[in-house]
Amino acid sequence: MMDTKTVKSISELGEFGLISYLTDNIVLKNSSTIKGIGDDAAVLSYPADRRIVVTTDLLTEGIHFNLLYVPLLHLGYKAVMVNLSDVFAMNARPRQITVSIALSSRFDTPAVSELYEGIRMACDKHGVDIVGGDTSSSRSGLHISITAIGEADKDKLVYRDGANVNDLICVSGDLGGAYMGLQLLEREKEVLKANPVGKPQLDGYSYILQRQLKPEARGDIITLLDALGIRPSSMLDISDGLSSELLHICKASNVGCSIYEEKIPMDSQTKQFAQELNINPLVAALNGGEDYELLFTVPLADYEKIKNDPDITIIGHITPPDKGANLITALGGTPIPLQAQGWRHL
Amino acid sequence: MMDTKTVKSISELGEFGLISYLTDNIVLKNSSTIKGIGDDAAVLSYPADRRIVVTTDLLTEGIHFNLLYVPLLHLGYKAVMVNLSDVFAMNARPRQITVSIALSSRFDTPAVSELYEGIRMACDKHGVDIVGGDTSSSRSGLHISITAIGEADKDKLVYRDGANVNDLICVSGDLGGAYMGLQLLEREKEVLKANPVGKPQLDGYSYILQRQLKPEARGDIITLLDALGIRPSSMLDISDGLSSELLHICKASNVGCSIYEEKIPMDSQTKQFAQELNINPLVAALNGGEDYELLFTVPLADYEKIKNDPDITIIGHITPPDKGANLITALGGTPIPLQAQGWRHL
Repeated sequence: MMDTKTVKSISELGEFGLISYLTDNIVLKNSSTIKGIGDDAAVLSYPADRRIVVTTDLLTEGIHFNLLYVPLLHLGYKAVMVNLSDVFAMNARPRQITVSIALSSRFDTPAVSELYEGIRMACDKHGVDIVGGDTSSSRSGLHISITAIGEADKDKLVYRDGANVNDLICVSGDLGGAYMGLQLLEREKEVLKANPVGKPQLDGYSYILQRQLKPEARGDIITLLDALGIRPSSMLDISDGLSSELLHICKASNVGCSIYEEKIPMDSQTKQFAQELNINPLVAALNGGEDYELLFTVPLADYEKIKNDPDITIIGHITPPDKGANLITALGGTPIPLQAQGWRHL
Repeated sequence: MMDTKTVKSISELGEFGLISYLTDNIVLKNSSTIKGIGDDAAVLSYPADRRIVVTTDLLTEGIHFNLLYVPLLHLGYKAVMVNLSDVFAMNARPRQITVSIALSSRFDTPAVSELYEGIRMACDKHGVDIVGGDTSSSRSGLHISITAIGEADKDKLVYRDGANVNDLICVSGDLGGAYMGLQLLEREKEVLKANPVGKPQLDGYSYILQRQLKPEARGDIITLLDALGIRPSSMLDISDGLSSELLHICKASNVGCSIYEEKIPMDSQTKQFAQELNINPLVAALNGGEDYELLFTVPLADYEKIKNDPDITIIGHITPPDKGANLITALGGTPIPLQAQGWRHL
């Protein structure tokens, strides 16, 4: 437990003091990290046969997260995972992040510490070093910008433009859970507004809540594919819903696709809560977003290697471009063109 | 001139559309950039004998900039320069940046284009590739997060902890101008509040205005030092005022310093406007910040190489740590301990 009596306020600490307070005991873990926080820039070193990947995200309060129901610890964790997920989606390994935070005066030192604790938990989980950043105030709300840097063998990088006709389309884990978790949190927020002393009814839905509040970037799938001797022909992470991501692959690779409704993996809680809200759970999987699972294609020849893996589901196959991108429904097999209706923060 | 009639609104474009609109015609310039915008992450490749430097900044409206008097074009330019300045301060060369922008609904497509135009001008000036980013909305104000990546020969990197006793302390350019430019803009803002149809009185102060609105990262000094065969023993860029930066060097290098009031380079406009406001211009130089000049130390043996360069001023020397960090005044030579009173955004 932190002794709040001895914790200085943010204005007492100042920018440099706050950064020290948050980062002084960071132990660097990666040989590619030569110098972390404390100079004008971090210094990294990678062998020449490695490719370096860089990805960045800016999360803004009221748009990407709602602090009414997202604990700061989870927010920090998720802000990192979102970026690590993009690194894994290149078939690469994350090694470093930088963290910039701007916060309004309503946040105190313990609050920032909690946020940072979540950031550090996510880094520790994937052996990532925090090597730089920036902390300042904002006129309103909390803003977190994270840049993640990773590495891959140059022959193992996977882009989104390599899918070929007849490749199998695969996803890790299950889909739609994060979206249904968000719906649950939104519902309870409304209930709480109406009855501030009521207790949120979240029992039986811990899985979809976790999918929304504490997503896990699928580094384990990258390890698994490597162990299976599989290099996907294309890959990305599902941040905006399956439809939108599939359309990215089809556009970049100049191919079409057919996926099968009954193949799309969904957890029983996702289906159950969708039923409770009279939502088709398929909509959550196709357009919900924030699942941070991996969507990838593999040559048909890899079918035997992949078919029995409990963490990977084959949901369809790549077609010639003139066939379009379609969902084949369970009832009657009618093809329905996929549409991008993912998260639009604009 | 952009034909605004054909420009779609940001909500019509959507996130992906806006990113395409802003970045579609980017031509990558660096051999270290393998893949720019368009996948989950950018892909870079550096030779093994190069060190990679990474730095990041998050600029927030109302804290770091005021759009009442900062044109978006200049803001974009400055947001990049601030980061490139940190790369140069490592004696490194910037190669790539990522750009994340969150903006409220009061910004339209031409406004974002103007901001982006400034970003691109700054990149073009220093041969830097825009390789990634993120565009989303914010509940209030504009937020820009830029990460810059650069490279240096591993034997040429300069940290802030290498200053030695008797080293000469040098600065590039002149100091205090950016701060006085800000004071001028603030004064005119107040005048304009009182008389909205009045014209701002900015004549004769174009230099200090430019120092505030369009700072230039000193890549030319890095080139010059290289040409002179000088590797500074320590270096950083002056973003928070000379005092604060000198104290960083003293702390990191475990040394003291003496700098001389009459040696501190200041432009005549800086002095003139300070006089007009009854401010000691020295305060602007020591504590004003945002000059983005380079502060560095060199061995005494380099004196002959550096003494006649018009862009570099020797302002003092490094002392043993027990002497402290002092300003020697012009009148009487009294040493005054330096204090960090730089920008504090918290």
